[in-house]
Amino acid sequence: MTFLELAEKRYSCRKFSDREVEEEKIEALLKAAQLAPTAVNFQPQRILVITDKEKIKSLDENGCTRYTFNAPLMMVVCYDKGKSWKRSFDGKDEGIVDASIITTHMMLEAVELGLGSTWVGAFDPAKAREILEVPENYEIVSLLPIGYPAMEPSERHHKRIDISEFTFRNKF
Amino acid sequence: MTFLELAEKRYSCRKFSDREVEEEKIEALLKAAQLAPTAVNFQPQRILVITDKEKIKSLDENGCTRYTFNAPLMMVVCYDKGKSWKRSFDGKDEGIVDASIITTHMMLEAVELGLGSTWVGAFDPAKAREILEVPENYEIVSLLPIGYPAMEPSERHHKRIDISEFTFRNKF
Repeated sequence: MTFLELAEKRYSCRKFSDREVEEEKIEALLKAAQLAPTAVNFQPQRILVITDKEKIKSLDENGCTRYTFNAPLMMVVCYDKGKSWKRSFDGKDEGIVDASIITTHMMLEAVELGLGSTWVGAFDPAKAREILEVPENYEIVSLLPIGYPAMEPSERHHKRIDISEFTFRNKF
Repeated sequence: MTFLELAEKRYSCRKFSDREVEEEKIEALLKAAQLAPTAVNFQPQRILVITDKEKIKSLDENGCTRYTFNAPLMMVVCYDKGKSWKRSFDGKDEGIVDASIITTHMMLEAVELGLGSTWVGAFDPAKAREILEVPENYEIVSLLPIGYPAMEPSERHHKRIDISEFTFRNKF
């Protein structure tokens, strides 16, 4: 599978089967996370791997997010604010970018492994912090529910604007 | 090549040959950008494709960044603040995450195409805006110089902490 085929194959999977994700597949997902680059190689990512389905569901039940989809596995991707690189020019914390690269790597590796996932940004960060007991200095960037797909991608899953609509050549 | 092999093969390439990047490869990179998911599929990414080497070099010459590496191609990945999704809970602008996913897709597609790249977050955003005449409502997230590699990866290019150092199981 070429990278473009892999990227094309990915879709937001919103229904999972009951089948659990095997430990070796969890390890492959984390290997993908490990290989991802981070600013200045500071590696500030901190990932909570949740296989406790009750815990995953509790995010839904407590109004933190509506997007857990009864998944058997969830990656909660954070960065440690004390470890991430800050840009000298304006103090920008690059940790959110690092965590996004890492989530992308895991999302793509999931496709390779025959798993589905959905990137969830729509969650209440305060409630997530409370429910998951996230340390003070960790910022949560994304939730990634993962499992074996129990749905087909919808026709609109790859509905995209034309490349010409988001690109500019040499000048805006 | 599996996804893990692709991820393993990627490294920060800091020296490029003079060879220009073919138009069909530029199009493949943009295809990878197009396929990337964005929050609520709002697709706020706006990419400046620079093939004008003088323009790329000018970022270096004007003190905007030290990381242009004389590249023949640079992707400047922005998002349109007027188009990106904002989270209701806290108003977080997810555009930075979207632009990071898209940059990751292009970075990985570059490997597939036999190209090298380096993700550059270390730039002066105000100077970049001025030099590249970036519209007011666009935020620049990353610069991605790309070209044919004229170096081998250094031994430390994949120096990573152990997976156990950045993961937690079910509880922090």
